[in-house]
Parts: sequence; C-alpha cells; structure tokens
Amino acid sequence: MQPLVPFVRDSALGPHDALVDALRAAMPDIDLQIHADIPIDRLGEPTVAIVDGPSIEQLSTIANLRLVQSTWAGVEAILPAVPDGVEVARMVDPQLGLTMAEAVLAWTLYLHRDMPRYARQQRQADWVEHVPVRASNRRVGILGLGALGRLAGETLRDQNFDVAGWSRSRKTIDGIACFDDEPGGGGIDALLERSDIVVNLLPDTPATVGLLGTEAFARMPPGASLINFGRGPTVDDDALLAALDGDLETGAHLDHAVLDVFVTEPLPDDHPYWGHPRVTVLPHISGPTSTDTAAVIAAENVRAFLADGTLPIDAIVDRTRGY
Amino acid sequence: MQPLVPFVRDSALGPHDALVDALRAAMPDIDLQIHADIPIDRLGEPTVAIVDGPSIEQLSTIANLRLVQSTWAGVEAILPAVPDGVEVARMVDPQLGLTMAEAVLAWTLYLHRDMPRYARQQRQADWVEHVPVRASNRRVGILGLGALGRLAGETLRDQNFDVAGWSRSRKTIDGIACFDDEPGGGGIDALLERSDIVVNLLPDTPATVGLLGTEAFARMPPGASLINFGRGPTVDDDALLAALDGDLETGAHLDHAVLDVFVTEPLPDDHPYWGHPRVTVLPHISGPTSTDTAAVIAAENVRAFLADGTLPIDAIVDRTRGY
Repeated sequence: MQPLVPFVRDSALGPHDALVDALRAAMPDIDLQIHADIPIDRLGEPTVAIVDGPSIEQLSTIANLRLVQSTWAGVEAILPAVPDGVEVARMVDPQLGLTMAEAVLAWTLYLHRDMPRYARQQRQADWVEHVPVRASNRRVGILGLGALGRLAGETLRDQNFDVAGWSRSRKTIDGIACFDDEPGGGGIDALLERSDIVVNLLPDTPATVGLLGTEAFARMPPGASLINFGRGPTVDDDALLAALDGDLETGAHLDHAVLDVFVTEPLPDDHPYWGHPRVTVLPHISGPTSTDTAAVIAAENVRAFLADGTLPIDAIVDRTRGY
Repeated sequence: MQPLVPFVRDSALGPHDALVDALRAAMPDIDLQIHADIPIDRLGEPTVAIVDGPSIEQLSTIANLRLVQSTWAGVEAILPAVPDGVEVARMVDPQLGLTMAEAVLAWTLYLHRDMPRYARQQRQADWVEHVPVRASNRRVGILGLGALGRLAGETLRDQNFDVAGWSRSRKTIDGIACFDDEPGGGGIDALLERSDIVVNLLPDTPATVGLLGTEAFARMPPGASLINFGRGPTVDDDALLAALDGDLETGAHLDHAVLDVFVTEPLPDDHPYWGHPRVTVLPHISGPTSTDTAAVIAAENVRAFLADGTLPIDAIVDRTRGY
C-alpha cells in the first residue's frame, strides 16, 4: 500500500492546486492527500506531512508524525506546532535563491530609479526629472549572508551597486564588504550606517525580533530606504511608521519601505501600511515556492526519509537555532 | 580672447544649472554663456553652440554657426533648425549606455515581477499572490541594436531573460536572437510575434514614425507589454490606447505600457496617458545626460573642432539618416 502523506495548508491561505498537482506528479509512489480530505480514522497512519505555510491546528491532528517537510525556506511559523522528536526539513531549492535574488535586484532598482516618486508624480500629472544616482554610488546593505543573501548581494554587485552585508559569523564574498559580530567585524551598526538601501533577508528567530526598530532606523542615513524580504517580526512596525512619517521639526528620516512580509499575513485590511504613500505592500511574493522544482525536492526528501530515515544535511532544521 | 560658446536650451524645459556648471568646469579655456544672457550684438561671434534638447528658435539667432554639439544622443529635434553646412555632433557617452541599460533592466523587472498589478492591489488593500514567471521563460524583444540596444540586450540576457533584438542591418550578439530586414532576417514582425515585453530604443527618423501602431500591437502576443525608451513619434498613441483598452468583445490586447518619451514633452496635462491605469508615465528619465561625463566629452569635441575642424567619427550626425 502507498504511504499516506497529508498536504497541510491553512484554509485561510486558500488552496494551492498547482503545488498539489506538482507534488502528486513528483511522487506517484505516495498517496498525497489534502489534510482536510483525510477521514479522521486514517489520521493515525501518516508519519510524514508536507506543510505549505503556517498550519498549527492541522499538524496537531496527525498522531504519529516523524517528519514535517516544509515547502517554505522559513519554518518559524510551523516550529511551535511540531512536537519534540519530530524532524523538520526546510525547503532548500536553488530556484528559490534565483527568484529571491531577482526580487532583491528588481526592488532595489525600483528604489534606485525613483519609481515610487515618479508614480506619485504621475498621479498629479507632474513632469519633473530627478538626477539619477549611479549604481556605483548607491550603497546597498544586505542583512543575512546565507545562501539567499549571498546570491542577492552578488547579483547587486554585478549590476555595479556598492554592496555590503552583515551576518553573525564572518563571511568573505568577493567585492562585498562583509560585516559581522566577531571581534573587529563592525557589527550590524556598521552596515546600517553606510547603507542607502537596507535589504533584510534574516530568518525569524528570537534574536531577530524587533531588530529593525527605532535605534536601527536612526543609524541609517537620512533618506535611506528599507526592503523587507525576510520575515515580518524583524521590523518594529510602529518604529518604521514613525521613521517614515517623521515629525514637524525633523521631517521623515526614511524615504520608503518595500514590505513583502508582515507579523500577520495576509496583512489586515485596516493596517496603516496599505494606504501609506511611502510604503509598497507586496503579498509575500519575493521568494515564492517554485512549484515544479520544490515538488521534486520535497519528493526526494520524503522518499529518502521513508526509506531509511535520512535527509539532506542542509534541509534539516536546527530547532534551537530556528532555521 | 576665449571663444564664446552659447549654451542653448528651451526655456520651457527650465534651466539645467548642474550641466552648465559641469561644462564650465570641463572647458575653462572657453567662455560658455547661457544663450539668453548673451547680448544680441555678440551673437555674430560664436561658431560653436552646445544644445541641450530641442531649441529651434534660439539656434536661428546665431549667425555664423559651424557646429552644434548636442548633449543628447537623439538629435532629431534640433536637426530641422540647423542650416545646411553646419555640422551636428551627437553625444556618444559610455555612461549613457550604462544608465539606459540599467533603465531597461529596471523597468523590464518592473513588468516581469508584476509591480503595476501589485500597486493596483495595494490601493484596494487586496492580498493576492500571482505565480511568478521565470526570467528564462520571459521573452524580451529590443527594437534597435546600436550601442544602447546591444548593451541593454546583453544586460537582460545576463539576468537570464530570453532576449531577441531587431535592427535594419544584420547583427550578431552572443546569446541574443537577432532579426533584421535583410533576406531571411525575419523582419520586425518576427520580433514582435515572439516578445512578451517589447523595448523600443529606435531613433526618431522618417522610417520609424508610427512604426508601433495597430498592426504591430496586433502581432504582439495577447497580454504583452511595451517599454518606449526611444522616441515618442515611433508609437501611434491612439493605437496604443486602443490596444490597452480593448473592446467589449476582445478585451485588452496589451497589458501595460511604460512610456518615457512622447510626441510632445513635457506630456500635456490633459493627455489620457497620465491617468491611464495601464500606463506608467516617466518624464524622459530613462537615459538622462550624465552631466559630468557628458561635459568632458562635449569639451573635448568643441576644443578639437575649434582647433582644427575635426570631430570623433561616431559623434558626427549623418543628416540624411537622421542620427
């Protein structure tokens, strides 16, 4: 009999038929069923679940779980729901790195070439040219130099931007100024102080919650901008709104924020970000799961785990670290 | 005595102090004066003028002109005002090529990553993800494979886009499908039929006026988009609006247009492009004159011409060809 593997996705997020189809095509030897369609009396069978996004309630219904395979790179939203002793595999997909690096390039160019400003002008039929800044004079700072951050930084560097990065441990990347928290590494402050555009790609862990708050924004140069393609809780929303709004005496300190991730997703209808003229809201699309490649990778992981309990080393989540 | 060289710029375009300052710094041996500031009785002196954009009326006041040095790459707007026998030098600045290639990349990514659609959704607080297309599956077509088009195409190719180009004469560029009007070259139709995004970089000549009209838009795939960074008259505005609006039976044929150049600039306040939800209006900023580098190049050309009547071969405008 084919092993039963539930596909778990919160109903509030809507269905994801394309991914289910791709997973079924990639694992014809496995009986993949949408969690909600599985009769309660069969929920004792599965030992592996494939989870697409935060799905806390559904996971608790599966009694004999041994592995949760995430279709996302970031697993912080599912970790609290996974009992001790259950392995968690994150999605490590080279295609995700390419898509994310492209997004970082696209929205860095969006800020670099003044697209939000020209959009405001268009609404007022206002024809005003602004002198462009050369990429080599635009300082971009990447927070997080793992696989995603490194590729994003290299892509920006190849497009002539002046790129720096920060990570906790020391990294060396050709043509990128690397700061870190080791002795003499300058720390995150050194990165914030030299960046016209800060791109956050950090995971959501206890160490990153609220990391980008009042103090961090004050360290950024006046008129700097923020791109958050990491996770929502890393940004202190009230502090960001204050930095974008400024006050009567000092004016706004930050120019613009491009936000793709939020503490609560979907972003609530009444959130001030939606209507803010200096905020670009994106519906978590910077690094979406690539259905065809992710399905193949998930299938390989699930098949290996069912066969002999192994997983690719870079997919295994360290639960104390959080990623 | 230092030779008097007028700086000519239509007053409707406003001043361009940064360029004047850069020109004066680059040519301390020349008496550069803003045209409007030169007394009428001295307008017989200059033999060389530096012209920044369309300036038909002012040029006719300079009696003994022998050279017009344009600060723009495109000179079609000044040619009608230049008497026979007067040389015209266009701006050939490597920095312009980099700025324009960056603009082509920036606004191709703008369309490729659905930025106009997400902006419309933000105005309605609408959280909807759209499945991204891989760059390798996005067909971009460049019209014009001169120095600017070639570099733009190579930049897109290096970012993994599926790039083709069209020029009148045959070109060969590594990794770019090149169409042309020579026998077996496929012609412009071959390019239009395979392009999800068409990028126009053609100069304004009698051969390009209205080239992108009803027939051309019908050849583009349904849902394709247009970027016009060349010249306004190449696009038939009524045909473009019809292709973007569609009709009740067929729907819109084109998805979006990014327009940086127009038949009349600044774009008139009441033009339908300003308020059109599927048009992005830019105030001619895709390839702006780079003041510091252009000033040095203009100074070198003017100095050589005043010394011995020579000019760099690639700067000399062929007036029958129009560029």
